[in-house]
Amino acid sequence: MIIVMRVGSSDKEIAGVVARIESAGLKAHLSQGVERTIIGVVGQIYPELRDRFEMLPGVDEVILVSKPYKLSSREFHPLDTIVKVGGVTIGGKEIVVMAGPCAVETEQQLLETAKAVKAAGATILRGGAFKPSTSPYHFRGLGEPGLELLAQVRREVGLPIITEVMSPVEVELVASYTDVLQVGARNMQNFSLLVEVGKSGKPVMLKRGFSATVEEWLLAAEYILAQGNDQLMLCERGIRTFETYTRNTLDISAIPVIEKVSHLPIIADPSHGTGKWYLVIPMALAAVAAGADGIMVEVHPHPDAALKDGAQSLTFENFQMLMSQLKPVAEAMGRCLASPS
Amino acid sequence: MIIVMRVGSSDKEIAGVVARIESAGLKAHLSQGVERTIIGVVGQIYPELRDRFEMLPGVDEVILVSKPYKLSSREFHPLDTIVKVGGVTIGGKEIVVMAGPCAVETEQQLLETAKAVKAAGATILRGGAFKPSTSPYHFRGLGEPGLELLAQVRREVGLPIITEVMSPVEVELVASYTDVLQVGARNMQNFSLLVEVGKSGKPVMLKRGFSATVEEWLLAAEYILAQGNDQLMLCERGIRTFETYTRNTLDISAIPVIEKVSHLPIIADPSHGTGKWYLVIPMALAAVAAGADGIMVEVHPHPDAALKDGAQSLTFENFQMLMSQLKPVAEAMGRCLASPS
Amino acid sequence: MIIVMRVGSSDKEIAGVVARIESAGLKAHLSQGVERTIIGVVGQIYPELRDRFEMLPGVDEVILVSKPYKLSSREFHPLDTIVKVGGVTIGGKEIVVMAGPCAVETEQQLLETAKAVKAAGATILRGGAFKPSTSPYHFRGLGEPGLELLAQVRREVGLPIITEVMSPVEVELVASYTDVLQVGARNMQNFSLLVEVGKSGKPVMLKRGFSATVEEWLLAAEYILAQGNDQLMLCERGIRTFETYTRNTLDISAIPVIEKVSHLPIIADPSHGTGKWYLVIPMALAAVAAGADGIMVEVHPHPDAALKDGAQSLTFENFQMLMSQLKPVAEAMGRCLASPS
Amino acid sequence: MIIVMRVGSSDKEIAGVVARIESAGLKAHLSQGVERTIIGVVGQIYPELRDRFEMLPGVDEVILVSKPYKLSSREFHPLDTIVKVGGVTIGGKEIVVMAGPCAVETEQQLLETAKAVKAAGATILRGGAFKPSTSPYHFRGLGEPGLELLAQVRREVGLPIITEVMSPVEVELVASYTDVLQVGARNMQNFSLLVEVGKSGKPVMLKRGFSATVEEWLLAAEYILAQGNDQLMLCERGIRTFETYTRNTLDISAIPVIEKVSHLPIIADPSHGTGKWYLVIPMALAAVAAGADGIMVEVHPHPDAALKDGAQSLTFENFQMLMSQLKPVAEAMGRCLASPS
Repeated sequence: MIIVMRVGSSDKEIAGVVARIESAGLKAHLSQGVERTIIGVVGQIYPELRDRFEMLPGVDEVILVSKPYKLSSREFHPLDTIVKVGGVTIGGKEIVVMAGPCAVETEQQLLETAKAVKAAGATILRGGAFKPSTSPYHFRGLGEPGLELLAQVRREVGLPIITEVMSPVEVELVASYTDVLQVGARNMQNFSLLVEVGKSGKPVMLKRGFSATVEEWLLAAEYILAQGNDQLMLCERGIRTFETYTRNTLDISAIPVIEKVSHLPIIADPSHGTGKWYLVIPMALAAVAAGADGIMVEVHPHPDAALKDGAQSLTFENFQMLMSQLKPVAEAMGRCLASPS
Repeated sequence: MIIVMRVGSSDKEIAGVVARIESAGLKAHLSQGVERTIIGVVGQIYPELRDRFEMLPGVDEVILVSKPYKLSSREFHPLDTIVKVGGVTIGGKEIVVMAGPCAVETEQQLLETAKAVKAAGATILRGGAFKPSTSPYHFRGLGEPGLELLAQVRREVGLPIITEVMSPVEVELVASYTDVLQVGARNMQNFSLLVEVGKSGKPVMLKRGFSATVEEWLLAAEYILAQGNDQLMLCERGIRTFETYTRNTLDISAIPVIEKVSHLPIIADPSHGTGKWYLVIPMALAAVAAGADGIMVEVHPHPDAALKDGAQSLTFENFQMLMSQLKPVAEAMGRCLASPS
Repeated sequence: MIIVMRVGSSDKEIAGVVARIESAGLKAHLSQGVERTIIGVVGQIYPELRDRFEMLPGVDEVILVSKPYKLSSREFHPLDTIVKVGGVTIGGKEIVVMAGPCAVETEQQLLETAKAVKAAGATILRGGAFKPSTSPYHFRGLGEPGLELLAQVRREVGLPIITEVMSPVEVELVASYTDVLQVGARNMQNFSLLVEVGKSGKPVMLKRGFSATVEEWLLAAEYILAQGNDQLMLCERGIRTFETYTRNTLDISAIPVIEKVSHLPIIADPSHGTGKWYLVIPMALAAVAAGADGIMVEVHPHPDAALKDGAQSLTFENFQMLMSQLKPVAEAMGRCLASPS
Repeated sequence: MIIVMRVGSSDKEIAGVVARIESAGLKAHLSQGVERTIIGVVGQIYPELRDRFEMLPGVDEVILVSKPYKLSSREFHPLDTIVKVGGVTIGGKEIVVMAGPCAVETEQQLLETAKAVKAAGATILRGGAFKPSTSPYHFRGLGEPGLELLAQVRREVGLPIITEVMSPVEVELVASYTDVLQVGARNMQNFSLLVEVGKSGKPVMLKRGFSATVEEWLLAAEYILAQGNDQLMLCERGIRTFETYTRNTLDISAIPVIEKVSHLPIIADPSHGTGKWYLVIPMALAAVAAGADGIMVEVHPHPDAALKDGAQSLTFENFQMLMSQLKPVAEAMGRCLASPS
C-alpha cells in the first residue's frame, strides 16, 4: 500500500501517518519527492486499510498495489486449470462448444436441438430451466420439469448438460440434475449463491456481471474457489456500454486479459454478448482467435417461435455454418474442436 | 408495437409479416412511407413478441411502444405513494433523513451514532448487519447479533431502523427485527429476493443497480409490487460510468425522472454515490433541490477506524453541518425536514 | 512515480530497473514488501516515463502520483479565479444565469428572447451562430450574420453575450463579436482551437467532453491557461453513460469535485445535460445546491418551432418559473443571483 | 416518424398533432391501440421534426425510423467500397496491415522500422508527425519535418504512408506528403476538418470517437462522403467504458456491424484499443476473424525508449510473430494478407 501525501503536508501530518502505520503493526518507508512525500507501507495489507488512511490529515490518496484476488490469480497458481465435464476437458488444447436453446420449452424442442447440435459437433448441451427475467410478466422457465427434460435428453443423446441456478436454496436441486452449474451475470455478486455453488463440488461456470470489472469478476470467482471448488471456468458475455446497436458489448479483450492474470478457463457467449443472431458467428470466431477455451451459443429449431431470446438464437443451419467456420480458425490457432465423447 | 420493414422489402415479405400478426390474434395497420413500409401492431402486446417478429424476412427493426412496467408507473397510479415507517411519512411534504454507520460494529458505536444523528435531526437509523463485500476476505457484517443491536438501540433511542437483507432465506429473520428492508444495488435483479421482500409486508427500499436503466429499476420494483406490497420506495445510489474520480456517478437526474414516470418515493444515497465524505454534503443538498423525498447518509463516530466505508462516512460534526445546510434548502423547495417522532 | 515489481521478480530485474531510473537522472527508493518489491522514483517525472518503465522485465505496473495538471489545480493556485464579463463577475458569491436560444435564428427570435430572459433576471445572453451538428444534413447555424444579430441585440438589450467557436480559423472573427468564447463538448480536445482561444485574450467557457474524465478536462483547460489566458471557466454539460432516458447524464458531482481540485469557476448546462425541458428546472436547482457558480439554459419563444434542440428549451414562462425557484435555493446556499448590470 | 400519444390523450390533442403534421406537408396514419394512439408520419422526414412534435400536448414520445445516414449505408450502396492506396486495395479479399511507430522521431527510427515491417509483410507505413496529446506538456510530434521524413522513407523503402491530420488548416500540407489522411478519434466530430479532408480527394481513414455510437460514426463519415470523396475507410480503435484494465475497450462487434450496415472498409487498431502490447496480437487476430479488412499496429525498434505510447508498441520480433499468426487466421477466413506492391 502506498500513501501519497498532499503537496505541502506538514512534518506533523507525516509523523501522524507513520505513527498510525506502526500502530497497525506495519512498516513505513518514506520517499521525499520534489513535490510531495510518498509513504510505502509494508506488511499484511487488507483493502479496508485504504479507507482508514485516506481519512488522515495531510493524505491525498492511498493506492493499493497488491491484487486483492489470490486463488484465482496466475501469480499464485501458474499452471492452467483444466475443468473436466463428462469426457470433455476445458482449458487445454481443445475448444469446447456448448450449444442449445436459451430456455427449455418442450421435450421435442430440446431433443431435436440436442441431436442437431451434437451432429454438428457441440460437446455440451445448454438449456435454462430457471430463467432470470427483467420483468415479472415474462416467461421464467419451466423449473424442475425443465431439469427433468434436460436429464432425460442427456440420457438419450449423450451430451453432458449445463444449466443456470439462480438462488442458493435451489443449488442442491439443480446440482442433482446438471453436469455444470451456471451462475448468470445478474448473480455474479449474489454472494450466498456463490458460496453454495462453491460447496456443491460440481463444475461451475461464472458469467461476468454487466458492469463488473475484471478484478470484481475474479473476486467473485474467489468466493467459489475459497470453498475448495477448483472446477471453475469464467464466461465473458458482454458488458454494458453507451452503444445501443448491440444488446451488450462483448469484451473480447477480457479473454487474453483473463488468460494473463488467471489460470481459469475462459468461455465466450456471443449470443447474449450481441443479442443479434447475425453477429454470433463473427464474434464466436473472434473469441476463439483471441484465445477463448470455448464458446456458448444459443440454438433453437424455430428462433421466430422461441419463448425467449429468439433474436439471438441460431437455426440448426446457421449453427452448422458456425461449426464449419470455427474448425479452421481453431486450427489456425494451433487448437482443435473438442469431439463429443 | 411497430414493425419497420427494410427499404425494398417485397410485397410477399410484407404479407408474411401481416399473416403472422393476424395468426397471433393481433391487428396490423400498414403505413406506406416514401422509403419503406411500417406496420403498426395493435392488441395485447408482450415483449417476447419483439424477438419473434425481428426474425421474419424483410423486417428491419421492431419497436415496442408500451412501457413494460405498470404497477410502478404514474400513468396507472397518478397519486404519489406515501410510505409510513413508525411515525415518519415518506413521499409527502417532509424530507426524511436516514443516517447511521455503514456496518453495525459494536453496541457503543451504534448507540453513540444513533444518539448523535437523532440529536441532529435524523428520523431513521441505518446500519448494516449483513453486508455485501466484493471480496470474500473482507468484513461481511455481524449477522444476527447486529440485528439484535439495532433492535436494542431502537428501543433506547427511539428511531425506526432500516437494514439490508441479501438472501431470500434471510428475509423472515431480518423482517422480524427491522422497520424497513433494504435491497442493495447488487441484488436489484435478485428476483427470488424481490419476491420474498414483496411477500414480507414490510416497507422496502430498493436501491438502483450499478448499471440498471430506469426501466429495469422500475421492473425490479414491479416484482415487489406484484406481491401486493405497496410500501415501496426507491433509492438512487450512483451508477457506473467511465469516471473514476468518484466511486460511482450519482445520477441526480434520476430523481426528477422517477418523479415523472413513477408514483414511488425516491431517496438519494450520496455516501455510496460518491465514495468520498467531502462530496456527501453538496450531493445531499443537490438531491433535495432536485426533488428527492429523502437522503440516506453514512455517519460514524471515528471514520478513520470504521470497519467498512470510512472514507465516505461523515463525522458527527460534519453530519450536523449537513443538517444545518439541508434545512434552508428544503424550505427553499417548499418542503421541511421530517421531525423525529 | 511508483514501480510495482512482479511477485517473484529477480534481483537482476530489480537492478535493471534501478539502473534505468538512475540513467534517467532520477533516484530510486526500494521497499521490500511481503510479496513484492516496490520502487519509488523521485525527480522530475513526466508521464511518458510510465510507458518506458512498464516495458522493463519484472515490472508489473507503474503508478503516477503527481497530478498532470498544474495551472488549473488548486494546489498551485489556492484562491478562486474570478472571471469578469461586462459588469458580471463569475466565481464569487453571485450565481450567473446565461440564457437564450440554442441557435440564433432571426432578429425577432433573438431580440424577443433577450428581453424576456433579461426581464426574468438572466445576466448573459447565449446563442449559437456556428453550431456543431452530428449530421451534415441538419441546420448548422447562420454563421457571421448570426454573430451580427448577437452584437446588435447586445446593444439594444444590454446583455453581454456568449457564443460558440468551432474552428481555430474562426476564433478571431468570433472574438471580434462576442464577450465570451464557448468551446463545445465535441471540441474539448481540439487542441489547435484551445491554443487559439487561449491566445485571444477573451474570457472562455470550456465545456466538458461527453466522455472526458475530470483529469482530461483540466488538462484541456491547461492548454488555454498555458497561453496566459486566466479568464477561464468550466461547464459541466453531461457525460455519456448507458442510461438512455436522458440525452446525457449530467454529472452533478463534477461540480464539487472541480471546486476541490481547481480554482476555476464551474457552470452547469442542464439543457444539454438532460435533453428534456421538464428536467431543466430540477437539475438547475440541483447544480446550484451542489455549489455551481452559474447555469446556462436554453430558452426559446416557441420551442416547438425551434430549428434546433426545441425539446430541451424552456418557454419564457418556464424560464420565469426557474428563476423564481432558483432565487431561494441560491439564498439557502448563502449566495445570490447576479443582477443584470 | 412515429408519434406515440400518452395513455388517455384527448381527441383534441390527437387532432392538434394531426393538424401540425398536415401543415408541415406530411401525412398522418392513425393506429388506435388498446392503451394509446400511435400516429405514423409519412413524407420527407428530417430529424429536427422530432423535437418539434415531442413538445406538443398529449405526445409521449417521437420515434425516428429512417436511418439518418445515407451515403455511407449499405441500403443505398449495396456493393463493398474498395479503397486504393498505391498498389494496395482495401475492402476486398486482401487483409491490409498498416504498421509503424506511433510518432515519427528520427530518420533512423523510421527507416529501420519501415524496413522491418515491410520485411515482415506490412503494406502501409504508419507514423504520426502531428500528434494529439491530452496534456500540453507532452510530445506533440515533429510537425512538417516529420512529414518530410515519412516521404523520404517512402521513397527509400517503397511503402505508401498514412499519417494523421488534426486541423483544417493543415489538410493541404499533410495531403501534399501522405497517401492516406488519418482523422483521429478526438477529431471524429471536428466537422470543419471532416469537410476539408473530404475536399482533399485523398483516401481517408476515419477513426471512431471514444464515445461515438455507430450511428454518429457513420454520420461523421457522411460529412466526408458528401464532399464527393468516396475513398474512405473506417477504423475501430476502442471505446470508453467503465473497465480500466485496458486503456479502451476494443469493440470487436463494431466490425461485423459496420459490414452489415455500411459498404465502407473497416480496419481495427488493437494498439490504441488495448494500450498494452501483450494484448495486441490476440486482438489483431480477433479483429480479422470478425471480418476486419485490415489492422493498424504500432511498432517501434525500442518500445522502452519511445517518445509516445511505448507500452502498446510491438518490437520487430513481436511484429513478426503477429504476422506469422495472422496469415493462417486470414486463410481460415478465406482471405489472404495483402502483399507489398
